[in-house]
Amino acid sequence: MSAFKKFLPMFDRVLVQRFAAETKTKGGVLIPEKAQSKVLSAKVVAIGTGGRNEKGDTVPPQVKVGDKVLLPEFGGTKVVIDDEELHLFRESDILGKFESS
Amino acid sequence: MSAFKKFLPMFDRVLVQRFAAETKTKGGVLIPEKAQSKVLSAKVVAIGTGGRNEKGDTVPPQVKVGDKVLLPEFGGTKVVIDDEELHLFRESDILGKFESS
Amino acid sequence: MSAFKKFLPMFDRVLVQRFAAETKTKGGVLIPEKAQSKVLSAKVVAIGTGGRNEKGDTVPPQVKVGDKVLLPEFGGTKVVIDDEELHLFRESDILGKFESS
Amino acid sequence: MSAFKKFLPMFDRVLVQRFAAETKTKGGVLIPEKAQSKVLSAKVVAIGTGGRNEKGDTVPPQVKVGDKVLLPEFGGTKVVIDDEELHLFRESDILGKFESS
Amino acid sequence: MSAFKKFLPMFDRVLVQRFAAETKTKGGVLIPEKAQSKVLSAKVVAIGTGGRNEKGDTVPPQVKVGDKVLLPEFGGTKVVIDDEELHLFRESDILGKFESS
Amino acid sequence: MSAFKKFLPMFDRVLVQRFAAETKTKGGVLIPEKAQSKVLSAKVVAIGTGGRNEKGDTVPPQVKVGDKVLLPEFGGTKVVIDDEELHLFRESDILGKFESS
Amino acid sequence: MSAFKKFLPMFDRVLVQRFAAETKTKGGVLIPEKAQSKVLSAKVVAIGTGGRNEKGDTVPPQVKVGDKVLLPEFGGTKVVIDDEELHLFRESDILGKFESS
Repeated sequence: MSAFKKFLPMFDRVLVQRFAAETKTKGGVLIPEKAQSKVLSAKVVAIGTGGRNEKGDTVPPQVKVGDKVLLPEFGGTKVVIDDEELHLFRESDILGKFESS
Repeated sequence: MSAFKKFLPMFDRVLVQRFAAETKTKGGVLIPEKAQSKVLSAKVVAIGTGGRNEKGDTVPPQVKVGDKVLLPEFGGTKVVIDDEELHLFRESDILGKFESS
Repeated sequence: MSAFKKFLPMFDRVLVQRFAAETKTKGGVLIPEKAQSKVLSAKVVAIGTGGRNEKGDTVPPQVKVGDKVLLPEFGGTKVVIDDEELHLFRESDILGKFESS
Repeated sequence: MSAFKKFLPMFDRVLVQRFAAETKTKGGVLIPEKAQSKVLSAKVVAIGTGGRNEKGDTVPPQVKVGDKVLLPEFGGTKVVIDDEELHLFRESDILGKFESS
Repeated sequence: MSAFKKFLPMFDRVLVQRFAAETKTKGGVLIPEKAQSKVLSAKVVAIGTGGRNEKGDTVPPQVKVGDKVLLPEFGGTKVVIDDEELHLFRESDILGKFESS
Repeated sequence: MSAFKKFLPMFDRVLVQRFAAETKTKGGVLIPEKAQSKVLSAKVVAIGTGGRNEKGDTVPPQVKVGDKVLLPEFGGTKVVIDDEELHLFRESDILGKFESS
Repeated sequence: MSAFKKFLPMFDRVLVQRFAAETKTKGGVLIPEKAQSKVLSAKVVAIGTGGRNEKGDTVPPQVKVGDKVLLPEFGGTKVVIDDEELHLFRESDILGKFESS
């Protein structure tokens, strides 16, 4: 994971790592890969300095590393860093975050 | 429901739970599922911190948890949280709210 | 009508009730429904708090409940509140208002 | 005409009445209706309070009732007020005005 | 020309009169009308008060009556004032002006 | 060249003169006209006063007469001034400039 | 490389040099050119003065010469400077940068 710490997303981009897909139903039945629904929850692994407002000042991001977030079904940019598939989303495209209980 | 309290919509997004569809006419006749009209009224179950203005400052939302709101016919994002089907709308897309009598 | 008082349009939306269509010509001849022209004048029955400017501050609306307004031919959102068909327009889409004589 | 005084265009809209089309050539020859060119000059019969700037403040209009203006060939909204065909234009779409000599 | 002085373009519009097309080559050969290239240089015959900035304040124009300007190949609005064919351009569409030597 | 000094581009436009195309390869072989690549480097021969910001204030240009600049492959407006083919580019479309060594 | 020092990208553009493509797999197997994936990491070789905010003031760039950056799969402008193939990207299109360990 440490590779991410060396990667700084630019501006309001957020680097996330999707959680692994459910491979079994709640009843324990194996789910074939094709039937596994796209994982929309993910962990924030790196954040940028934040977007810019109309003056060019930086606006601090509202998510932080370690947050658990809900991603939109579409959008985002797939990036491969040290052979790990990750995704970059604009902060404003992230739907919401789960408060750590 | 408590699951929602742990979910914080980002920015100006509002998490709503549609009311159940009318299954009977006023005269008591059962309405087949296909004929049930889309439910456009819903309850606010979680709100974000609010959108950002041009300076990047947060603008507090005008709805609060528990408000009864009228949704547009189209738009919004379906999300499933703890197996519950909910919807996320931008605050500005919500048509209006019913004052609690 | 009291139902409208409980409905608050969001932001710069205005809830209007179209006046009844003319069913007779000036000469008293009945106008078949299909030939009745779309009614473009309406009464304001509820207003929002007003739109937001670039800072996020609320800009008070320029119409008030009871105003008689002229609607554009197209646009607006049909809503049904307590079985009454009404329409929501953005304030900026309303063409003008008739001063009460 | 007094009907117009009771009609207030919203914001930066301007209510104009087109001048009558030329029905004869300068030489006195009758011009058939189909050959009469669209009249692009008109008189301002009612103005709104003016458009809004980015703060939501009203920006006073630069035309006044009685001004003779030059309209663009296309655009504008036809409205019928007391059986009179008039047109609403955004102030910014009006091409210019003729100084009253 | 005096008719133009009575015509005030609105806002950032500029009224120009194209120079006559070259009817002869430098060698004195007559150029048939169809072969005459479109005249892109023109004289400013009337200017507006200037465009508006985001606050609604007027921004004075950078051209003045009498300036010789270079027009873009396309765009502009043809207007006929006192039987004279003229053109209205937005100030920002004018490519440049020739300093009077 | 003096003709350019009399031509003032409007606002943020920059008048440039492309350098002559390479007619020989480095090895001295003649390059047929069709094979000559489009020349993307050019010299600034006249600049405007600069673009306007949201307030309408002029923002001084970042290039000056004599600068050697790199043009984008597409865009720009061809203009002929005193029979010389030149090009007008918006300052923001110019890719960069070569520091005079 | 010194040629780049003489090239100044305009405004918020960043001149980058892509790293060489991997020609062998980790196991040492030669990768045919066609199968070599597009190189998305690059080194910053020249930066502009920065973009402009709404007032026209310059906003300093967040990357510097020597930074290792991650490029988007598409976009950017290919430029050839002293026979070297380089690319210009808007700063806001660069996905992120790798902290020099």
